[in-house]
Amino acid sequence: MAIVDVRAGNSPPRAQAVIGARPQGTNGDAEALFPQIHADLRQVETRLRQAVHANVPVVPEVFLHTVHAGGKRVRPALALLAAQLCGRCDEAAFDVAVAVELIHLASLIHDDVVDDSVRRRARLTANRVWGNKTAVLVADFVHSLAYPILSRCGDVALVRRLSETVVQMVEGELAQMFNEGSLEVTEPHYFQMIGDKTASLMALACELGAMVGGGSSAQIAALRDYGFKVGLAFQIADDLLDLTGDEERIGKPVGNDLRCGRLTLPLLHVLHNGNAAAKEELLPLICRGDLEVADIQRIRALLDRAGALQHAAEYARGLSSAAAELLADFPDNEARQALEALAAYIVLRTT
Amino acid sequence: MAIVDVRAGNSPPRAQAVIGARPQGTNGDAEALFPQIHADLRQVETRLRQAVHANVPVVPEVFLHTVHAGGKRVRPALALLAAQLCGRCDEAAFDVAVAVELIHLASLIHDDVVDDSVRRRARLTANRVWGNKTAVLVADFVHSLAYPILSRCGDVALVRRLSETVVQMVEGELAQMFNEGSLEVTEPHYFQMIGDKTASLMALACELGAMVGGGSSAQIAALRDYGFKVGLAFQIADDLLDLTGDEERIGKPVGNDLRCGRLTLPLLHVLHNGNAAAKEELLPLICRGDLEVADIQRIRALLDRAGALQHAAEYARGLSSAAAELLADFPDNEARQALEALAAYIVLRTT
Repeated sequence: MAIVDVRAGNSPPRAQAVIGARPQGTNGDAEALFPQIHADLRQVETRLRQAVHANVPVVPEVFLHTVHAGGKRVRPALALLAAQLCGRCDEAAFDVAVAVELIHLASLIHDDVVDDSVRRRARLTANRVWGNKTAVLVADFVHSLAYPILSRCGDVALVRRLSETVVQMVEGELAQMFNEGSLEVTEPHYFQMIGDKTASLMALACELGAMVGGGSSAQIAALRDYGFKVGLAFQIADDLLDLTGDEERIGKPVGNDLRCGRLTLPLLHVLHNGNAAAKEELLPLICRGDLEVADIQRIRALLDRAGALQHAAEYARGLSSAAAELLADFPDNEARQALEALAAYIVLRTT
Repeated sequence: MAIVDVRAGNSPPRAQAVIGARPQGTNGDAEALFPQIHADLRQVETRLRQAVHANVPVVPEVFLHTVHAGGKRVRPALALLAAQLCGRCDEAAFDVAVAVELIHLASLIHDDVVDDSVRRRARLTANRVWGNKTAVLVADFVHSLAYPILSRCGDVALVRRLSETVVQMVEGELAQMFNEGSLEVTEPHYFQMIGDKTASLMALACELGAMVGGGSSAQIAALRDYGFKVGLAFQIADDLLDLTGDEERIGKPVGNDLRCGRLTLPLLHVLHNGNAAAKEELLPLICRGDLEVADIQRIRALLDRAGALQHAAEYARGLSSAAAELLADFPDNEARQALEALAAYIVLRTT
């Protein structure tokens, strides 16, 4: 597979508009994104860095490399805001926030091993720096640490839900891997897969946050559903960025899904709901072996002409709105406004 | 690295005596080894096979491949017998038995990826059949399943102890990996490492079994200590088999630790406590690059002459006796006798 510099090419003009401009004041940094919980997220960051102790020095090295790569800490923010919205954001909410982020960070390390990724968030991946074996074991270590932290809350239901969700996430990853290169994937398969691999953990962050925040069953269910919809929208936007993004800004090569033979929503839309001509034009392009930057651009232009990029972006925006509507019965306070803003941000993000 | 057939060589006559003859009636099969819990172990086997459901067909395939490879189910037996000895072996004890075996099986799959192993228990490894990526993800899946099963017991302390133990196991694996090829490893490092990577899970099986069996704090502590000592003895015997065993019977190539640059107890004994002449003779042999079968045999003969194989075997037997003595305050019933027999078997096993 040739390493191509996608920056050399020109983006089709409409693609940028689909994802939308970066909203003012959101610089991709967690604290700027969630000003309401600025201090709380700093505390999560400190706790994350302190969570990993080991006799083997490489463990904190690999872990801190991954933590330092940044990330918006969307999952901890969801947990803390859900707890706040339900009325109580105490020690247990921080334990939930740290636990879900540890699971997320461990899954990123494993995903990079599975995908043979070289870069993530503009840094070399752990597998690239330390090798697959170390990356696999450190991810196991980080993953396992989430459980003792969460079990401090004393409620076995939290731990059970976490483990059920991890099972679901891994199943989503496996489904993605086994569908690579398959033209039999349909939109329902895609939604099942992104629901499992991505939305399930965001839903869990909200659910556990609501549980430790003292939410009622209805509130827990509403926040869980909110998190799931936000998670679906997030993944659709992420998949769109892989087609239309800028390598320098997203911190990894674009067109990765296409090169791996993964059919995301815009492609599935053309294959299953588009006009026959667009489908006929698309099929030979995506079935080609080593995709060059020019091929990615042709596919992107085709998806743009067929309205498939717009369809996917609209779908994500619909999910985002539906997520925000689920908050209607909660008090209209800072936490609710932050969750509404987060849902809107998810489909506007460009980094 | 050349693939060598160690069967072509002749074992030094004393090596076999060190490990001892296979005890009568113990054919390596779980049920024959633990006749007292024959029916219970059948139930564990059924529950293990039923534990893994997934939409992705490869998950149960890989898992059943690993389950079918057999194994003596030492950890489930420890859990069930500890529960029995404390007076109550009910549904919760089966959940503990299945959960610890799932963690063990997942760790075997990851270990084989990390070690690039081709064979285990005379079968091809999952990584060899399905590739590293699938093996890593299926192991994640199997590992995660242990938690919902264990959390059915309703006691968050069980789950916390399980997760703390998994952290310890991974740290042991990482320590082993980072000590590969190092001559600075000492006996205390070795014991820390095998305590973490192996003995911790056997200790946990006993501890959790005793907890769900209604044991007192003293009983739980005694059984935990028993399991830890049995685990250390088990690993020392396993490491000895890697030097002195028969490839066909142990189901994997011998000399693997030496080829990976892992110093086990007999080698450490010569390097740190042996006479200078033996050390001088050993050093250039173990520092050689690609070890051939003849090299392994020379090392084995040297360790034998230096009394290092005997030292390690005696050390393991001492641990086994000390483990059995920890059971002295329990009622002298079938469960206790089975645990005593298990401690004795551990240092006699040849498969």
